[in-house]
Amino acid sequence: MRILGIDPGYAIVGYGIIDYNCGKFSVVAYGAITTPSDMPFEQRLLSISNDMEFLINKYKPTDMAIEKLYFNTNTTTAIDVAQARGVILLSAKKGGLNLNEYTPLQVKQSVTGYGRAEKHQVMEMTKSLLNLKSVPKPDDTADALAVAVCHAHYSGSAFSKLCLEVTTK
Amino acid sequence: MRILGIDPGYAIVGYGIIDYNCGKFSVVAYGAITTPSDMPFEQRLLSISNDMEFLINKYKPTDMAIEKLYFNTNTTTAIDVAQARGVILLSAKKGGLNLNEYTPLQVKQSVTGYGRAEKHQVMEMTKSLLNLKSVPKPDDTADALAVAVCHAHYSGSAFSKLCLEVTTK
Repeated sequence: MRILGIDPGYAIVGYGIIDYNCGKFSVVAYGAITTPSDMPFEQRLLSISNDMEFLINKYKPTDMAIEKLYFNTNTTTAIDVAQARGVILLSAKKGGLNLNEYTPLQVKQSVTGYGRAEKHQVMEMTKSLLNLKSVPKPDDTADALAVAVCHAHYSGSAFSKLCLEVTTK
Repeated sequence: MRILGIDPGYAIVGYGIIDYNCGKFSVVAYGAITTPSDMPFEQRLLSISNDMEFLINKYKPTDMAIEKLYFNTNTTTAIDVAQARGVILLSAKKGGLNLNEYTPLQVKQSVTGYGRAEKHQVMEMTKSLLNLKSVPKPDDTADALAVAVCHAHYSGSAFSKLCLEVTTK
C-alpha cells in the first residue's frame, strides 16, 4: 500500500508519501504545499487543489491518512483550515484514494506506543521508523509522515496474511 | 450581472440564481443541492462539487454571493459546513466567478433596510423584491436568494452609470 499522509492547512499543507509492505516502510516523497498570505483565499484553495491533484497523479497513492480536525480558540483560522481540508478530501475522493482519519491520540499512540507522547517524541520516532537522517521540516511535513505511519500500523493486520503467503511460497 | 447566491452546508446547499440589471431583478433558478446522511462525507463533498459545476456550467453566473461563516456551539457540524464551503468556493474559483462574502448583518440590512430584522422578514422581503408567489422552501434556498439580493444591492452602484448611458442613448 502507498499512503499519502496529510497535515491540512491553507498556508501550509504538509504531505508525506510512504510505501508500507509486509511491515516495512519506505519513503517515497515528502514536503509541503504552501500558499502566500497575500493570495485571495479562493485562489489559495485552487492552488492547493491543483497541487494535490499533481501529487496524486505523480505518486499514485492508494490511501490517504489525515488527522481529524478539532477546534481551538482561533476560530477564524479553524474555519479556513476546515475549508482547505474540504478541498483536500475532495482531491482524495476524485483521485480514488481510500480515505482514513485519525485522532491526534491515535497518531501518538500508534507512532510512539504512548498516547501522551510529546510532539518531539512523535517526530523522532517517525524519523527513526522511516530511516530518515533528520526530522523533516517544516513540522507540517513531519506531522504528515506521522499520520501516514499511523495508518500503516492500523492497516497492517490486513496485510499480514498476504505477506505470510508470499514468504512461505 | 448574474448572481449565484449560496447558503452553504453539506446536507443542504441552498442556491438562488438571479439577474440584476439597471436596478431590476429577475429570477433565473433556485433550489437546493442535497446529500443523504448515510453517504460517506467525502462522497458528499464530491456530489456537491459535481452539482455546483453543473449549475455554473448551465446558468453561467458571473458572481457568487455567500454568507461569511461563524462558529456556533455545534462544532462538529461547523467543521463539516466549513469543509463543504471550501469545496463550494473552489467550484466558484474554477468557474471563474467573482466571489463576494457578506455577514448576516449585511444581508439583513441590505434586504430589509434593518440589520436586526427577523429571519421571516428577510424571507418575505426577498420574495417581494424577486416577485415570487411564495417564500421558496427549504429555508436554505430562501437564504441563498437573500444573499444574492444583498450582493446585487452592494454592487448596484457600479452598474448605475452604465444603465444611465443606455437609458439616455
